[in-house]
Amino acid sequence: MGFEPSTRAQELIGKADEFIRTEIEPVEAAMHQAISKADDPWQPQPLMAELQAKARKQGLWNLFLPKAEEGNEQYGEGFANLDYAPIAELTGRSFIAPYVFNCNAPDTGNMEVLLRYGSAEQKAAWLEPLLAGTIRSAFCMTEPGVASSDATNMAATAIVEGDEVVINGRKWWSTGVGNPDCKILIFMGLTDPEAHRYARHTMVLVPRDTPGVTVERLLPAMSRYDEPYGHGEVNFENVRVPVANILAGPGRAFEIAQGRLGPGRVHHCMRLIGLAEKSLELALERGTSRTAFGKPLVNLGGNRERIADARIAINQARLLVLQTAYLLDTQGLAGALSEVSQIKVAVPRMAQDVIDMAIQLHGGGGLSDDFPLAAAWTAARALRLADGPDEVHRGVIAKLELAKYPREEQ
Amino acid sequence: MGFEPSTRAQELIGKADEFIRTEIEPVEAAMHQAISKADDPWQPQPLMAELQAKARKQGLWNLFLPKAEEGNEQYGEGFANLDYAPIAELTGRSFIAPYVFNCNAPDTGNMEVLLRYGSAEQKAAWLEPLLAGTIRSAFCMTEPGVASSDATNMAATAIVEGDEVVINGRKWWSTGVGNPDCKILIFMGLTDPEAHRYARHTMVLVPRDTPGVTVERLLPAMSRYDEPYGHGEVNFENVRVPVANILAGPGRAFEIAQGRLGPGRVHHCMRLIGLAEKSLELALERGTSRTAFGKPLVNLGGNRERIADARIAINQARLLVLQTAYLLDTQGLAGALSEVSQIKVAVPRMAQDVIDMAIQLHGGGGLSDDFPLAAAWTAARALRLADGPDEVHRGVIAKLELAKYPREEQ
Amino acid sequence: MGFEPSTRAQELIGKADEFIRTEIEPVEAAMHQAISKADDPWQPQPLMAELQAKARKQGLWNLFLPKAEEGNEQYGEGFANLDYAPIAELTGRSFIAPYVFNCNAPDTGNMEVLLRYGSAEQKAAWLEPLLAGTIRSAFCMTEPGVASSDATNMAATAIVEGDEVVINGRKWWSTGVGNPDCKILIFMGLTDPEAHRYARHTMVLVPRDTPGVTVERLLPAMSRYDEPYGHGEVNFENVRVPVANILAGPGRAFEIAQGRLGPGRVHHCMRLIGLAEKSLELALERGTSRTAFGKPLVNLGGNRERIADARIAINQARLLVLQTAYLLDTQGLAGALSEVSQIKVAVPRMAQDVIDMAIQLHGGGGLSDDFPLAAAWTAARALRLADGPDEVHRGVIAKLELAKYPREEQ
Amino acid sequence: MGFEPSTRAQELIGKADEFIRTEIEPVEAAMHQAISKADDPWQPQPLMAELQAKARKQGLWNLFLPKAEEGNEQYGEGFANLDYAPIAELTGRSFIAPYVFNCNAPDTGNMEVLLRYGSAEQKAAWLEPLLAGTIRSAFCMTEPGVASSDATNMAATAIVEGDEVVINGRKWWSTGVGNPDCKILIFMGLTDPEAHRYARHTMVLVPRDTPGVTVERLLPAMSRYDEPYGHGEVNFENVRVPVANILAGPGRAFEIAQGRLGPGRVHHCMRLIGLAEKSLELALERGTSRTAFGKPLVNLGGNRERIADARIAINQARLLVLQTAYLLDTQGLAGALSEVSQIKVAVPRMAQDVIDMAIQLHGGGGLSDDFPLAAAWTAARALRLADGPDEVHRGVIAKLELAKYPREEQ
Repeated sequence: MGFEPSTRAQELIGKADEFIRTEIEPVEAAMHQAISKADDPWQPQPLMAELQAKARKQGLWNLFLPKAEEGNEQYGEGFANLDYAPIAELTGRSFIAPYVFNCNAPDTGNMEVLLRYGSAEQKAAWLEPLLAGTIRSAFCMTEPGVASSDATNMAATAIVEGDEVVINGRKWWSTGVGNPDCKILIFMGLTDPEAHRYARHTMVLVPRDTPGVTVERLLPAMSRYDEPYGHGEVNFENVRVPVANILAGPGRAFEIAQGRLGPGRVHHCMRLIGLAEKSLELALERGTSRTAFGKPLVNLGGNRERIADARIAINQARLLVLQTAYLLDTQGLAGALSEVSQIKVAVPRMAQDVIDMAIQLHGGGGLSDDFPLAAAWTAARALRLADGPDEVHRGVIAKLELAKYPREEQ
Repeated sequence: MGFEPSTRAQELIGKADEFIRTEIEPVEAAMHQAISKADDPWQPQPLMAELQAKARKQGLWNLFLPKAEEGNEQYGEGFANLDYAPIAELTGRSFIAPYVFNCNAPDTGNMEVLLRYGSAEQKAAWLEPLLAGTIRSAFCMTEPGVASSDATNMAATAIVEGDEVVINGRKWWSTGVGNPDCKILIFMGLTDPEAHRYARHTMVLVPRDTPGVTVERLLPAMSRYDEPYGHGEVNFENVRVPVANILAGPGRAFEIAQGRLGPGRVHHCMRLIGLAEKSLELALERGTSRTAFGKPLVNLGGNRERIADARIAINQARLLVLQTAYLLDTQGLAGALSEVSQIKVAVPRMAQDVIDMAIQLHGGGGLSDDFPLAAAWTAARALRLADGPDEVHRGVIAKLELAKYPREEQ
Repeated sequence: MGFEPSTRAQELIGKADEFIRTEIEPVEAAMHQAISKADDPWQPQPLMAELQAKARKQGLWNLFLPKAEEGNEQYGEGFANLDYAPIAELTGRSFIAPYVFNCNAPDTGNMEVLLRYGSAEQKAAWLEPLLAGTIRSAFCMTEPGVASSDATNMAATAIVEGDEVVINGRKWWSTGVGNPDCKILIFMGLTDPEAHRYARHTMVLVPRDTPGVTVERLLPAMSRYDEPYGHGEVNFENVRVPVANILAGPGRAFEIAQGRLGPGRVHHCMRLIGLAEKSLELALERGTSRTAFGKPLVNLGGNRERIADARIAINQARLLVLQTAYLLDTQGLAGALSEVSQIKVAVPRMAQDVIDMAIQLHGGGGLSDDFPLAAAWTAARALRLADGPDEVHRGVIAKLELAKYPREEQ
Repeated sequence: MGFEPSTRAQELIGKADEFIRTEIEPVEAAMHQAISKADDPWQPQPLMAELQAKARKQGLWNLFLPKAEEGNEQYGEGFANLDYAPIAELTGRSFIAPYVFNCNAPDTGNMEVLLRYGSAEQKAAWLEPLLAGTIRSAFCMTEPGVASSDATNMAATAIVEGDEVVINGRKWWSTGVGNPDCKILIFMGLTDPEAHRYARHTMVLVPRDTPGVTVERLLPAMSRYDEPYGHGEVNFENVRVPVANILAGPGRAFEIAQGRLGPGRVHHCMRLIGLAEKSLELALERGTSRTAFGKPLVNLGGNRERIADARIAINQARLLVLQTAYLLDTQGLAGALSEVSQIKVAVPRMAQDVIDMAIQLHGGGGLSDDFPLAAAWTAARALRLADGPDEVHRGVIAKLELAKYPREEQ
């Protein structure tokens, strides 16, 4: 591969690979079954804490955290995006590995925000326990009432009144909020409708148990509730928190959200690449072990061609994400704007197609939960919408292409 | 439309349309919610029986039943495939309408089998109550242990011992078996491994409560259990029924299955076309009622082109199904072999794509169960496998094309 | 097929089929070779006149002409669109058959225009010899200087000065103008820029030899000059013709163009379906007669699946065109607006894909002119632009879908 | 970009870029026109020799040549694949640049073969003048009579008789053979049908003017003759050359062909990427400079989305080719077997799609030769067949994937 991680990263990539194969994969199916049979599937599984303890002991913990910027304390390895990317890919092969390594969305993004924009008090209160894995967090941005693909549509409010912020509105797809360990919400709302389009909104830390915060329901994503984390619809009614809970300052939400984007998309996309690889492996296993019309499935009709197309698609997608990581590492977000959108369009679509192929090769089994394919498909499909629908990202890419052609009024 | 249903059919199409709009659509969401909140979601909903009674009173009952063949009693209208097709399309717009009209799979196919191949006793015992809607049935063919895309792989056995048939094996995707009203299973198994490839298997009527029949679990299809009907994995262990329960005769299962195919595929496909139409309508409603970047969603990027492509795809698919219905009506299955496979390939894929587009236009809502799109997607996806995967049908179509070129050894 | 032509049409369909197989196909390759080796490839081939005479004698002549409207004389059979469609499909299998039957574009459209809008003098002068096949015509609408996908962009002018029309401007893709038999041009230009958007333009009959008319060059379409007819870039410089040469009246060009559309698109699309069928046949012949890796080509990899997909795609496309013909016959253009655009989007794309597949199965031969596939591909590709690019037609279809949703401002 | 060329390469990349922009692009259209208007379009254009002399003077000459292997003399820069790849991309933007830099297929591959397998005499006679650009060469492998996708089908013969090789058979798609400067053919034929499948064939140097060698015709590729180089069908009838003309030794043709593959495919694919970039640029220029329906074309319908998709596709393809170059440089062909096939499948298809999009945005102009798009399309389409059809390469990729699953009998 032309994008080499550092020697230290290679060491941890090897350990992560080993850990996933020996500690996680053998127990994953049992954990999913335990959840599905639990009286209350929303309770954290005790096994998770055990696995986390083991992983942490081996240094497989918080590896997503970037090198410290000026004024920030260094946590963890301080890996470049290109160092962490292969680890993200490995964790993506499993639905629980990201949690085991404390590298799961949205906690990763929330921790980054706290690291870069949190005050000392905010860090002590929320970042430390998040880094320790003792609490979980949620991010409350998308709203059911408006087309949230245009973030400036956001209608929930965060009004500063004296030394308090008053929060009202309804959010949904607040991932992680179903879990009793989820203790802190990052809420984004409208503060000053008269300000510049991108300076109207504020991010506020809202403890989960603040009066007025209600998780109205947990939403299925393509029929899956993703217990024990889940996706919540959360109502905020006259919720009051101190102004000290504001992140960075009033009106700075878009600035914060922007900084959260690049690495987050690299993580998401690398995990999906891991998931696509896993799905291709499952397809190959099934295709070589089952027989129809006197031949292994893989030798029937266009199956080999589909295998080949999947291999090409995964490889191309991985290279594009690594190139994006490389640009982020060497030029920052400003040098990777188009690529960050390109991977958001290309990778979920690729993963969805590869997984669909794997489902088809599994026959009825592919639709069931006997294989992780239905869950994988949902993860890929959801990411064509989460964090901006494909169409919005295509718009960004086109705009950047057109910027080279001054005749165009954009 | 170039394929005109009969005058009588047009009358009933109008009534069905009216009934669905006024009686079913207003209560459907509530019924889904009632199921999801029920202590036991597998219990039939009382409202269903009420709706069925109303529908039956209006003659909207068992309309799928074909004209009587020689030696068969006439039930219902005796519609041609081209008469019933538009009704199937209308019922496909709703997930409950097929049940309300007693026109849902697999009961429709099972009733047809009983009608054409059942003895007088078999009809009295099972066909009558199925036609009356007082019981439900399941079809037990696909097996978890083999690639069932090649039906000759089937490994479960139905051995004649004296005046009994002894049944052993494991089946899955037995749709409808989760419902307590499901009283009869049509089981297909291997009887004589020495016979001709298509004369080895037998269909047997197995009452649901026969000792040795165990529904081991209900399977999620792309994470949906489809309560209160469901898809079961059923174990048969030394199940004994009288030889009188054999349908048509030992070794005739493939012959029976064949006859079941043509109309069944037309029904499935017409329902999917209704579902795709419904999804396109939802996309248009959402696309015109929500705004982003200062425009209705439908005016952004390629959305109008996608709407146009959906319209073209639906229209082409409908015409192909109607042409297939026409061929079945005028030439029988022998004259429609390629077309029956063509629609199985073309329509589910088309529906899946149209629904995916509608989901995308709904944003996060499209993934949730607030809209019927996640359920619709699953229905379309499952039909790319159910009743033969796309790839097998493509093989049939190609074989029929190649039959014109004698050089080819097939 | 569910769309039955009349008995008389069936008779002529049979004759056309026979004529193409026995008279045209055996000589077609030789004619193409004669053209390519001729000193002047733009001279009409003598064999063409012979074939035309034979075809005419058998009644295979001008069959595209519709039933007479009030005030029009009846020419030919007066076939409905559904009657003529299968003949158009048959002629589309050959590149010369449309000419042999005097059913080739753009002469067909020009004859229809003259029939419906021509004065008695205009008909005598130009329609009669066109119907007799003694002259050819061209249609001069598209312009090199503007995006002609928006016809209101048209910049060439047709100004009435006393009893003359003065014509200026530059047109291209004037098909047929390379042939010395081409004697009459229908020119469309701007007459009154102040009038309503669709009443500004006028159609004028311009004899090919009028002073100021210059065919500046003949254009290759995807590298083919399509001798001996060709596609010209024509300059009009102070060309003066009598006002009596105006068709229908000043400002009525869009009205005339509109009426020309529906049947013309059905013809184009049916010919492409014939071409796709021919290409699929060639693919099957090649695929069954050549061997690689020990198998006939058709049995390698996904080839059979591609054959099946081609069969499905052709059948769906044909049904959509027939449905469009049926709507035109029963409801006129107003009842087929969306469908007329649907087929323009669906059929050329389908044909292009099927032909591409056939090329691939032919290997290097598919790229050469040893098979008619390179020419076929060009015909399909050009029709994704000719007569309105796909994107404009998608826009029309979407607009008609959205018309059902009043919230939408279009 | 994550794949950095060496400092020396970067210097020459800059010079090549400058040379193409200032010396080649300004004269390219004129040269094409000169060819198309020439009495004999097959005569070399004098301007070409002038450009070559200039390029050579600047060191832009034979840059494709790899670092010397043991026993070989070093010619040129000895660039790694990763060094040369960006130069190949730049030359691909123009149809004449590869010739100007003496880096055009098939001469590049033929020079590599001579370099690696040629005897001192063979090098002196043919390699030296090829490196000097004073003669041109052709490669005679594909045959019209068999499916050459399976190279073992090859039927032409090269029989050793005493100190002569006797050559018989018919080859086609011998690119370059139309040019009078083409003086040497590399012929591949069957020598020993009893030998191992891959040891039966021999490569022989056949001077163009050897008795018995006849160029029977020049073939159009998708209607283009590609003067003044062309693609020939060549007949060999009892052609006799000394055994000293055999390359490497009898039966070693597959071994030689194999070594020719990897870098050659990287070159082809990088040139196509340059061509796709050029086409995207043309699309953006046209899309921003023409107006329809009151907007620049690029702002209509899905055009911006298509621009974005083209950008993503080009970037992914480039990264995959660079990764392949990197593997060839670091691990040799054995470490890049799958990738070398992956790029052959992915890149021509990508280029074809991007070019098709650009054609569509150009309207009728896109079909003409006023833009280089028709020629570009043909180049991309041809490469889906040349050097092995997509389907064969998919087979190779799948086989390598399946090699990980021992159950599979391949």
